Amino acid sequence: MPIYKAPLRDMRFILDEVFNASAVWSSLPALAEHVDRDVVDAILEEAAKFNENVVFPLNRSGDEEGAKFDNGVVTTPAGFKEAFAQYGEGGWIGLGADPRWGGQGMPKMVTVMTEEIIFGANPSFALYPLLGIGAALAMSQHASDELNDRYLPKIYSGEWSGTMCLTEPHAGTDLGIIRSKAEPQADGSYAVTGTKIFITGGEHDLSSNIIHLVLAKLPDAPAGSKGISLFLVPKFLVNEDGSVGERNGVSCGSIEHKMGIKASSTCVMNFDGARGWLVGQVNEGLAAMFVMMNYERLSMGLQGIGASEVAYQNAVAYARDRIQGRSATGVKQPEKAADAIIVHPDVRRMLLSVRAHNEAGRCFAMYVSKYLDLAKYSEDAGIKAAASDRVALMTPVAKAFLTDKALEACIDAQQVFGGHGFIREWGMEQLVRDTRISQIYEGTNGVQAMDLIGRKLVRNKGAYAQSYLAEVRALVAATEGNAALAGYAAATGKAADSIEAAIQWVITAAAGNADEVNAAAVDFLHAFGFLAYAHMWLLMAQASVAQADDFHADKLKVANFFFARLLPQLDSRLASLRAGSDSLMAMDAASF
Amino acid sequence: MPIYKAPLRDMRFILDEVFNASAVWSSLPALAEHVDRDVVDAILEEAAKFNENVVFPLNRSGDEEGAKFDNGVVTTPAGFKEAFAQYGEGGWIGLGADPRWGGQGMPKMVTVMTEEIIFGANPSFALYPLLGIGAALAMSQHASDELNDRYLPKIYSGEWSGTMCLTEPHAGTDLGIIRSKAEPQADGSYAVTGTKIFITGGEHDLSSNIIHLVLAKLPDAPAGSKGISLFLVPKFLVNEDGSVGERNGVSCGSIEHKMGIKASSTCVMNFDGARGWLVGQVNEGLAAMFVMMNYERLSMGLQGIGASEVAYQNAVAYARDRIQGRSATGVKQPEKAADAIIVHPDVRRMLLSVRAHNEAGRCFAMYVSKYLDLAKYSEDAGIKAAASDRVALMTPVAKAFLTDKALEACIDAQQVFGGHGFIREWGMEQLVRDTRISQIYEGTNGVQAMDLIGRKLVRNKGAYAQSYLAEVRALVAATEGNAALAGYAAATGKAADSIEAAIQWVITAAAGNADEVNAAAVDFLHAFGFLAYAHMWLLMAQASVAQADDFHADKLKVANFFFARLLPQLDSRLASLRAGSDSLMAMDAASF
Repeated sequence: MPIYKAPLRDMRFILDEVFNASAVWSSLPALAEHVDRDVVDAILEEAAKFNENVVFPLNRSGDEEGAKFDNGVVTTPAGFKEAFAQYGEGGWIGLGADPRWGGQGMPKMVTVMTEEIIFGANPSFALYPLLGIGAALAMSQHASDELNDRYLPKIYSGEWSGTMCLTEPHAGTDLGIIRSKAEPQADGSYAVTGTKIFITGGEHDLSSNIIHLVLAKLPDAPAGSKGISLFLVPKFLVNEDGSVGERNGVSCGSIEHKMGIKASSTCVMNFDGARGWLVGQVNEGLAAMFVMMNYERLSMGLQGIGASEVAYQNAVAYARDRIQGRSATGVKQPEKAADAIIVHPDVRRMLLSVRAHNEAGRCFAMYVSKYLDLAKYSEDAGIKAAASDRVALMTPVAKAFLTDKALEACIDAQQVFGGHGFIREWGMEQLVRDTRISQIYEGTNGVQAMDLIGRKLVRNKGAYAQSYLAEVRALVAATEGNAALAGYAAATGKAADSIEAAIQWVITAAAGNADEVNAAAVDFLHAFGFLAYAHMWLLMAQASVAQADDFHADKLKVANFFFARLLPQLDSRLASLRAGSDSLMAMDAASF
Repeated sequence: MPIYKAPLRDMRFILDEVFNASAVWSSLPALAEHVDRDVVDAILEEAAKFNENVVFPLNRSGDEEGAKFDNGVVTTPAGFKEAFAQYGEGGWIGLGADPRWGGQGMPKMVTVMTEEIIFGANPSFALYPLLGIGAALAMSQHASDELNDRYLPKIYSGEWSGTMCLTEPHAGTDLGIIRSKAEPQADGSYAVTGTKIFITGGEHDLSSNIIHLVLAKLPDAPAGSKGISLFLVPKFLVNEDGSVGERNGVSCGSIEHKMGIKASSTCVMNFDGARGWLVGQVNEGLAAMFVMMNYERLSMGLQGIGASEVAYQNAVAYARDRIQGRSATGVKQPEKAADAIIVHPDVRRMLLSVRAHNEAGRCFAMYVSKYLDLAKYSEDAGIKAAASDRVALMTPVAKAFLTDKALEACIDAQQVFGGHGFIREWGMEQLVRDTRISQIYEGTNGVQAMDLIGRKLVRNKGAYAQSYLAEVRALVAATEGNAALAGYAAATGKAADSIEAAIQWVITAAAGNADEVNAAAVDFLHAFGFLAYAHMWLLMAQASVAQADDFHADKLKVANFFFARLLPQLDSRLASLRAGSDSLMAMDAASF
């Protein structure tokens, strides 16, 4: 059976030594008073304990059992209901929420860690509260006080849960063509009708009500994405006293049979004149939903890191235990019939690839979280705006690069197991199956790449990136004179130069041919991701270089590996990018 | 439901236009008489028909149903038994076998195509006959006439089937430490005792007998891999008249629950004093088994190509049909609410990556097959020896590079489907799950890489590679003056130079540190694979450049894509390689 221990030591390193979180929080009046480093530590300890002992043991059984559908009713696997209740009672759902509605007001720099832990422990389980948190976040920023006061406390307590209903059978990435309709009613509510698919947690038995946020069009709405509004549609109508009343016109038609995250119900939801209430402004539903989407996108990156951390821990345990063959440099365990496979350089290559990506990814998620907190809580308009820009730039990277690397990591870790990696009981194949979805949902990674290069770079002539590159170069300059960091700094500076040149190349090429943007997208995102990870490794090395203990010495060893053996991929990505769109567009669609 | 059409047009192109197979066959007296191009065409048509109509429809149902185990009895999914009987009756199992035992004597250049087709249609099904073919091949070269006359005709007819029993719970890659024992008996037979795991087709209901080839040690055998012998152990003993007699002491203890190829039974086999007969010489069992292993290794590459061909066909169909968003260069389908997603450069990038790898991989498998045929059938000792060397060099590439690229291809194709790619009914996720094993079994891809760089290059100072590089450079020279090929030729020549330099680097580094070989292995194999694919694309372009039709024009377009957007990865692989083993070996095993 697989093992999982929350990587608290590494999280504390990033929190304290790399980002000095306490200083960030004390600089923000909204956080300074109640966010205490000791409290945060207690939260981390408790998150580790709960997820390791309650949530993680349900991961394999949940996969084997799966969510079950019977005539509109969805049953989650054994143990999920009790664990969800405990999770809600423990205050985990409202950990980052506004205290006004029962939340604990913790910054993203804290919830980023607890989210990684729950995703590591059990991604199917994690999705049930996560969707509620996302829906509540969108509501808290766009819904009326009346709606928020009525719904949010019960979502944060886990009594109710939430979903986001965007996709329709014919409309996924392209939400402008959705067909769901909302008809205004005399009492100010709307009658919502349509079919939504791929609705995570659309129906289940974990909570007494499910609050759907639904994209739909008013009868007179403009065509395309400018005519989409957002509605709150509860599974059960809520009485004046807040109790659950009669069933609303929404039902689950079926659940999908999937490659992975089998314990998470993925539902076809039918809305048949269901009563709903407008959230935010008419025809501005997409903007409101994007609050939630951006939140989820970082979460998908955390799903990736959570999974690949589990993959790493298990592959290391196996590589230390499994004996097979002898070290090329001489027998290492003469008392045994063979040496542990961790003596083989290629096994180490796989393990170190996983680890180097995991640690950089974790650090990067914290980096983005810091800017999310600054954007949300800073009282300095300049800092706030700059932080928002950084978040806008980095969100697609955090979603797509982290999840692409996470799938690679799970596959590498599975490979360490040889034939046993393919067998269900070892748990490695489930990690691959469960992690695969993170590259697809909440906007495919190709769509994220297009968001990065198109909306975040080409459209504003690279302004977001210039500010980021300046930050990277400032760090490179700050390490000058430190011989132990010189190699990393030089490589990071060179990567920044390469990315800057690539952005200019794409902007110039796009001026002549609009297809160049999408043709460059995925290669650019990966090259940019490697720069971001080089940046993170330089930060981590900087925080480690003066320390004499093994933990910090190992950080430098992993940094060495990253710069020596992984970063070269940045160059080949940019070489592909510079080949442009010609070879992509030359063939007729009929010739494929 | 997924679709599959055997890629006969592309196969004929490779067979006739790239490799001029008829000329190869007519140069080999053992083939010249009976291998007729028209007969081969009829075989291809029939293989396509049978696999598309009988075998492929069982692929999804087989995955859903799986192989079932009950108290030692294994039941294959509905339809498998009938299809296997038809397959045997059709002569497919003996297609490449010696006519002396009922085979049709077709060269590998023919069976390479029919194998790809059956793997594309249904990899779980394909494994049942494949293991028998491999076992029969090892027997035909090492077993006594008496054993061969008794067993081979019934394996080739499909009446019986075969397995290879190598792995034990503690011994996979390292077969030197196996514990299975064989005690000589007074009648010249042996009593075989031990437990084997991961035995594909170890037990099933498709044939009236199952013939196991089992690695075991004699009581006085030397330690390690030099003390291993090979035994034939039938499930049922065979009477003097050839009929099936009493049950032998071999039984299936359980079957594995796996990520994929669920309709293929993967068995724990218990041998309890089972009667067996020696195949080949005492203590030379590994050498005899390697005949079979090498055959299987090319087959695993074909499993990869078969799967990624299916992935390609389905992803293209989806990308032409699914409308979502608009082309960046202007609306392409104004009559619809959106354009088909094949207008987007990034979707084309994924499709072309799959296609460029598939077509190069298919061409490469034929290239290796040509040398397999020359090695087997040539009467010229020089040609025979040179061909054997080329096969030795290329077998690990054909296994590992083709399957690594196949998994990438299946993942890319799945990504084209967005959320639907994750849903079982579309079949794309099964392709990923089924293809994953091809990177693991028959020697993991890491072991293949070590075979390539260690045994095939460093140990003989690069001699095999020098001969191959000379062949590549001769082709480059032969295309001189053809402007349409100049770009491809220059890039291929440059790739050859890079590989040559890398080999020298590894040989030099390995002289100082034995760990450098394994540290370089996987990056080298991938770089070498890219050279081999560049070589194949240059060959295919050479065969296409003078032709005016769409088929050949499209070949050049895919070649353009390969050289422009995929080949750059060769350089980053070699940059990683040159970083050497230091960053891999610096960390203590305990620090991982």
